[in-house]
Amino acid sequence: VRLRDLGIVVGEHPPGPVNAITDVPGVTVGLRTVVADTPRVARTGVTVVLPRGGEEWTDPVFAGYHAFNGNGEITGIPWLLESGTLGSPVAITNTHQVGTIRDALVAHAEARDIATDFHLPVVTETYDGWLNDIAAFHLTAADLEAALAAAAGGDVAEGNVGGGTGMICHEFKGGTGTASRAAGGHTVGALVQANYGARRHLRVDGVAVGRAVGYDAVPAPWPDRRDGGSIVAVVATDAPLLPVQCTRLARRATVGLARVGGIGHNGSGDLFLAFATGNRLPGGAPGPDGLTMVPHPAMDPLFEAAAEAVEEAILNALVAAETMTGHDGRTAHALPHDALLTAMERG
Amino acid sequence: VRLRDLGIVVGEHPPGPVNAITDVPGVTVGLRTVVADTPRVARTGVTVVLPRGGEEWTDPVFAGYHAFNGNGEITGIPWLLESGTLGSPVAITNTHQVGTIRDALVAHAEARDIATDFHLPVVTETYDGWLNDIAAFHLTAADLEAALAAAAGGDVAEGNVGGGTGMICHEFKGGTGTASRAAGGHTVGALVQANYGARRHLRVDGVAVGRAVGYDAVPAPWPDRRDGGSIVAVVATDAPLLPVQCTRLARRATVGLARVGGIGHNGSGDLFLAFATGNRLPGGAPGPDGLTMVPHPAMDPLFEAAAEAVEEAILNALVAAETMTGHDGRTAHALPHDALLTAMERG
Amino acid sequence: VRLRDLGIVVGEHPPGPVNAITDVPGVTVGLRTVVADTPRVARTGVTVVLPRGGEEWTDPVFAGYHAFNGNGEITGIPWLLESGTLGSPVAITNTHQVGTIRDALVAHAEARDIATDFHLPVVTETYDGWLNDIAAFHLTAADLEAALAAAAGGDVAEGNVGGGTGMICHEFKGGTGTASRAAGGHTVGALVQANYGARRHLRVDGVAVGRAVGYDAVPAPWPDRRDGGSIVAVVATDAPLLPVQCTRLARRATVGLARVGGIGHNGSGDLFLAFATGNRLPGGAPGPDGLTMVPHPAMDPLFEAAAEAVEEAILNALVAAETMTGHDGRTAHALPHDALLTAMERG
Amino acid sequence: VRLRDLGIVVGEHPPGPVNAITDVPGVTVGLRTVVADTPRVARTGVTVVLPRGGEEWTDPVFAGYHAFNGNGEITGIPWLLESGTLGSPVAITNTHQVGTIRDALVAHAEARDIATDFHLPVVTETYDGWLNDIAAFHLTAADLEAALAAAAGGDVAEGNVGGGTGMICHEFKGGTGTASRAAGGHTVGALVQANYGARRHLRVDGVAVGRAVGYDAVPAPWPDRRDGGSIVAVVATDAPLLPVQCTRLARRATVGLARVGGIGHNGSGDLFLAFATGNRLPGGAPGPDGLTMVPHPAMDPLFEAAAEAVEEAILNALVAAETMTGHDGRTAHALPHDALLTAMERG
Repeated sequence: VRLRDLGIVVGEHPPGPVNAITDVPGVTVGLRTVVADTPRVARTGVTVVLPRGGEEWTDPVFAGYHAFNGNGEITGIPWLLESGTLGSPVAITNTHQVGTIRDALVAHAEARDIATDFHLPVVTETYDGWLNDIAAFHLTAADLEAALAAAAGGDVAEGNVGGGTGMICHEFKGGTGTASRAAGGHTVGALVQANYGARRHLRVDGVAVGRAVGYDAVPAPWPDRRDGGSIVAVVATDAPLLPVQCTRLARRATVGLARVGGIGHNGSGDLFLAFATGNRLPGGAPGPDGLTMVPHPAMDPLFEAAAEAVEEAILNALVAAETMTGHDGRTAHALPHDALLTAMERG
Repeated sequence: VRLRDLGIVVGEHPPGPVNAITDVPGVTVGLRTVVADTPRVARTGVTVVLPRGGEEWTDPVFAGYHAFNGNGEITGIPWLLESGTLGSPVAITNTHQVGTIRDALVAHAEARDIATDFHLPVVTETYDGWLNDIAAFHLTAADLEAALAAAAGGDVAEGNVGGGTGMICHEFKGGTGTASRAAGGHTVGALVQANYGARRHLRVDGVAVGRAVGYDAVPAPWPDRRDGGSIVAVVATDAPLLPVQCTRLARRATVGLARVGGIGHNGSGDLFLAFATGNRLPGGAPGPDGLTMVPHPAMDPLFEAAAEAVEEAILNALVAAETMTGHDGRTAHALPHDALLTAMERG
Repeated sequence: VRLRDLGIVVGEHPPGPVNAITDVPGVTVGLRTVVADTPRVARTGVTVVLPRGGEEWTDPVFAGYHAFNGNGEITGIPWLLESGTLGSPVAITNTHQVGTIRDALVAHAEARDIATDFHLPVVTETYDGWLNDIAAFHLTAADLEAALAAAAGGDVAEGNVGGGTGMICHEFKGGTGTASRAAGGHTVGALVQANYGARRHLRVDGVAVGRAVGYDAVPAPWPDRRDGGSIVAVVATDAPLLPVQCTRLARRATVGLARVGGIGHNGSGDLFLAFATGNRLPGGAPGPDGLTMVPHPAMDPLFEAAAEAVEEAILNALVAAETMTGHDGRTAHALPHDALLTAMERG
Repeated sequence: VRLRDLGIVVGEHPPGPVNAITDVPGVTVGLRTVVADTPRVARTGVTVVLPRGGEEWTDPVFAGYHAFNGNGEITGIPWLLESGTLGSPVAITNTHQVGTIRDALVAHAEARDIATDFHLPVVTETYDGWLNDIAAFHLTAADLEAALAAAAGGDVAEGNVGGGTGMICHEFKGGTGTASRAAGGHTVGALVQANYGARRHLRVDGVAVGRAVGYDAVPAPWPDRRDGGSIVAVVATDAPLLPVQCTRLARRATVGLARVGGIGHNGSGDLFLAFATGNRLPGGAPGPDGLTMVPHPAMDPLFEAAAEAVEEAILNALVAAETMTGHDGRTAHALPHDALLTAMERG
């Protein structure tokens, strides 16, 4: 069940065919969910987003990055900023194992002789240590390989899946979410791992849903207020953007986040990545068709689309997530759909 | 008339005594409004914000900066970023005369032997060329001097005043606005010059007021859609923040802007400045009491306060602004208070 | 007389035909020198660099920026960073009149209806207040117009000319300098306004020339050590660089500066701009030929060329500058050519 | 043998007692060198720099970062930039195993209950895949633990040790190097992992040593020119710098690098970190003594010291490194001390 299945629509631009980041042609998503109760509690996983379905290793995409609040980790950024390019899948996992997944991506490339010398893949994270026994370091390179092997276009599972398995968002169960928009003659998609925020700030299309759903009706996941957590967002488009324009697009994820109620709390790693597939760089150089760019004034519909796609992706994560009990018997409750609908009707 | 006078409250933190940036002790604001119909139409002005009421020339404040969308001008930023300090008043004026006002600030300091060698004052702008005959370059150094001379604490005039005289915001008459919050044991204030946005995006406490007020009821200021314009925001606090923390605070202006409906259109110069008066730097060095800082985890209430103060400052600008006819007979209509209240009641 | 006229060669790449930034096709330079003894002492001016000889207003160039030490002023940077483009001449003048020249550029564009709405020109500066009575604010819009009217290709005057008129560099008379390199199949040129540094740090091709020329032989320009001053560098290339690559190029000016002995003292505004004419953006959009880029690995010769061009441009400024007496009877002595040659021979 | 043991002195400020980063009180360095010929060739290792000898986990230091050329990896930067603090040891290793070492640092902290929730340690790298069979992924968490266990003050081994084991610098054998300076009443130290540069660019105190030592006398490590490689530099000081000042200090590593002959080739990850121990942040908050800062104008001697310390650290790495044969029988030859001295004498 997704937000629109409940009859709730946010934004003004229409979604793409599957309303997911995979509406951007060539983009594939792979999920590896690791859930176990013994020997130690696992509620974690890996999500991969492949900008060109795997060809990005040798045909990089232009990319940009924005840290709205940098209490998080992301690898690969020095070269992404320096070159304006992204030449690997993007992986999203838990905070403690960014390194494991990052080196596994390097090993993946080495094993396939994908490039000659070195690799600087992009891996980012949010913290799932409330529901997941994170100090158990559950993930291995095999989990990354499983996520890559599962990468596909079309519908994307949401909620308690992939790197988003153990998320908590606005004090409800959070997770992985995605959405897309058709705007300005192009497609803009977003995928988020939503793990941030206070309940009282949650808004859906402007309605203060979080305040409407009291703690009596739906208990908080923790005994005392905790604002920790983070949100990472990957924004993709098939528009032919230059790197500087990808950065502009990444920054608009802030708007989508703010609409839902994010303010970038101190403990939040709100890291946003954007890439554009509309230009080709086979072997790192322009092909025979050269490059082009969307004129800057024509970026406006893309900005609006990025904000809306991130907004709806977060809400899709919340709607799709299911109540989960994990580490130390803690429970994060899903946002009940009926409570959401009731709140929306009351406005 | 201000937003709260209409019975509308946004945010969760209480405002300071006068609900203005001047609630931050020591901060003063001066306004110089230039309105004339002959020989050429003038609808412009200058706003100055003095972080320490004039003493900032010799006792700088720590400061930070964020460009949400950089289609605008602001001087003084290289040194502000390099040093983390702000050692001049901040002036806000129209786009074409940033230089005039900037050099006038230098001359002001020279005339008073305020410092020995050189000055790098901060002056920023938004574009008032729809209502103001901007190519007439109305402003002179005397206008800057008048604004400085008028600087005072306490209540701040809003709407069609100072640099905000000729603004248009969400396709209603815009202008200068201010607000403040008490949070985390400190005060956070904001002053904006609001000149951005599409009407359909305007939200007040989540309610889609802009869509509710149709173009039949209140005509657009222009015959065709124009997203140009900008918003500059100055955020002040008496908390003892370090420069890096001022930057964090400045970035939260984005949240306040997004709540009202800003998305950073391509043509918008959305430039945010934050300064903190809680540390003293007489002569550019710490005084006998040294420095301190708010521990990072204690920034959260300040972040929330900054977002709320910017949000309410924009709405105050909209509420205070009055319908204005200017250059070429163009008219920008104010947001009617009754239409606003009707929209809010319907939710 | 230029460095190579003395038989001194720095770097490994050959210069272009006139060994100036104007070797980049289309680039023109205009100088306006203002020297007077009454009513107040003037030793100042304006330098303009036109990336496309004036067409840059409507056919912007891609551009990047690096602040090695930000104790200086430069306008136009928010939009340059946001868009990756530069759509105006670059003007360089004295610290106090950046605003005058900036608004004069806006007025210049307004007077010619060059664009419809607003302008954000790039103007930067160094401080000439030791030799120039800077508080007299000598320059007017007419000086900017004179510099623009004088803009031409081919040879560029150096030393005590244009914005570089009153400069002091490594405690010798400094000024305007330029140089170029042919490398990687492209041309890279640089123009500097050199006004920084301690004498003991001055090196020419590695030789500690500054230490070799004692204060007995050539007096310091001031009674006590002063490290103030600044250097601004404009780097131009005809290579088809993307904005992100222009930023990379701008950062290499640091290497040229360091070779001569700059370390970015606290009081120095070491601001570097780079632009690339190899892509066309008529009306702000790619033309029928689209865009292209130099593959990143092919940037190396351009990096080397940028470092060398900046290095030689500084040295050309020093060699061309002539002893000047100015404000308050102060004298800045030129680096004597024979002393330079003697130092070089001794190694 | 170190540079000064050969009678060569660079710079004007005196070194500290052991002329190493450990001259900054409290800073310790640990090295783990991994050299083996079977089953696969290992020429790699880990270097750790502990800003407070281990207490930095709970008493962070202020820190800053500069990427002169971002073709490299470094973790922990989003939070370092956001907070201005560094709360972990800094580890330096090979490119492929940044993740392994990063997660090992997290596990190290978890095992000691050092903090409650999450960790974002700083790990950086250079590429040793020419001499080291990097695809063998030799390192494990035990190597990181060994480096931490070995951390000590006082003399620091240089050359083919720690993360610098398999380095190549200016086409000679490179490695780990360190140096320090006493300046401005404080100590500034640097540690580099030097793995960059073309031989023809190598300069020692201005003398073109690299060109003087021909390929006939000392063969290149590879059959064709390769500019890949990188240099990472850690700059430490006991001065009470604010984060913004640490960033300034980090940027001066560029000057030290440029003096030796670095220009930031495209393939180079030239990543510079600086931290300052002079302020205390027990538990992340100022202690009873509060904070202070070096006034900005007093940064100049620290800037000079940082440049000199980096310059000499690189040269110490070159002087200490010994000829090494590694993966695929490749050999990187050390810079012969007699050839260096001969070149210096000839000037």
